[in-house]
Amino acid sequence: MSEHSSVVRIRTQGFSDMHDLTPMADSFLAGSPVKNGIFCAFVPGSTAGITTIEYEEGVLRDLRGAIERLAPQNLRYEHDERWGDGNGFSHVRAALLGPSISVPVAGGKLRLGTWQQIILIDFDNRPRNRDVVFEVVGE
Amino acid sequence: MSEHSSVVRIRTQGFSDMHDLTPMADSFLAGSPVKNGIFCAFVPGSTAGITTIEYEEGVLRDLRGAIERLAPQNLRYEHDERWGDGNGFSHVRAALLGPSISVPVAGGKLRLGTWQQIILIDFDNRPRNRDVVFEVVGE
Amino acid sequence: MSEHSSVVRIRTQGFSDMHDLTPMADSFLAGSPVKNGIFCAFVPGSTAGITTIEYEEGVLRDLRGAIERLAPQNLRYEHDERWGDGNGFSHVRAALLGPSISVPVAGGKLRLGTWQQIILIDFDNRPRNRDVVFEVVGE
Repeated sequence: MSEHSSVVRIRTQGFSDMHDLTPMADSFLAGSPVKNGIFCAFVPGSTAGITTIEYEEGVLRDLRGAIERLAPQNLRYEHDERWGDGNGFSHVRAALLGPSISVPVAGGKLRLGTWQQIILIDFDNRPRNRDVVFEVVGE
Repeated sequence: MSEHSSVVRIRTQGFSDMHDLTPMADSFLAGSPVKNGIFCAFVPGSTAGITTIEYEEGVLRDLRGAIERLAPQNLRYEHDERWGDGNGFSHVRAALLGPSISVPVAGGKLRLGTWQQIILIDFDNRPRNRDVVFEVVGE
Repeated sequence: MSEHSSVVRIRTQGFSDMHDLTPMADSFLAGSPVKNGIFCAFVPGSTAGITTIEYEEGVLRDLRGAIERLAPQNLRYEHDERWGDGNGFSHVRAALLGPSISVPVAGGKLRLGTWQQIILIDFDNRPRNRDVVFEVVGE
């Protein structure tokens, strides 16, 4: 039994910019001694989120539309009145979607569906360099 | 320390069809050498989700209503225009809810509340045979 | 490799009352033999949730506003007609947000961002004593 971790850095553009993390997660697991267990991808920070989706441009746009309806950018946010960052909508979106995903690992492979990818969504209102933490525990 | 995994297959009807996974998860843990740790239930695929809820028909209907408001079925989805599957709403709902749940395990039992069950929700627009992966890591 | 767990009790007021769990999680990890792995915070019960956010009063209010739009308190809920608890909105909100969060641990510390805290949100319609389960697995 053991654990293995790594950090990847991704250049993001904000405003629900989405990135496929799956190839990086596959590489991470290929280099890990842990072949069966639970994999976790986590984004430190309070204006980004992680989920899974079919990484296809139409669906990505559909998800951006749903997120805009869920927490519209042009509402009045108290965070903006206090801090002037203009990214109150980003914080609310990130809290609703959540910063992490857990996926079982079997034989060194993620148990994702064929058309299911792990994505990072940057909700902030500016470009960022985002660290994403990969962690796997098991045997 | 060790890990244990299994797959269960569930026949689903789509359109936010909901299934209680808790009895299957209890059986899985009863047959596992891991008695304390973290349990993960994960659904491969990009049109289903997992969460917890009181498995009571009134609440299930209420949740279906909230999901319909969150990502209405009759909106225009770009995924449908590109691929013609007609299940763009299913993909968006699944990405927002998420495909997995993690629950602590103590003494071989899930640390769920008395009125809290783990459910699979199939958001797709047709019947499916769904595999759900159970994984537990710990001691 | 090992695992470690604990339970903390929190007095909550309901109606999206929010509590910062991070100091308690830090203390838990400081007393744990597991220094690298995956930490999970889970709330038993079907009317509360856990996520991460910048614990700043403006953002907390903004999140409460978004939750009210997502599952308004004054809608008609079938759960209320069947059970008379008046907390149908609480159940729906909890199912949408989810009861758990997973965070990687490195060197005995949570890999949270500087302005990112783990919060408990009690969605119920009355004061409660809430148990939150902490669990960490790894080495």
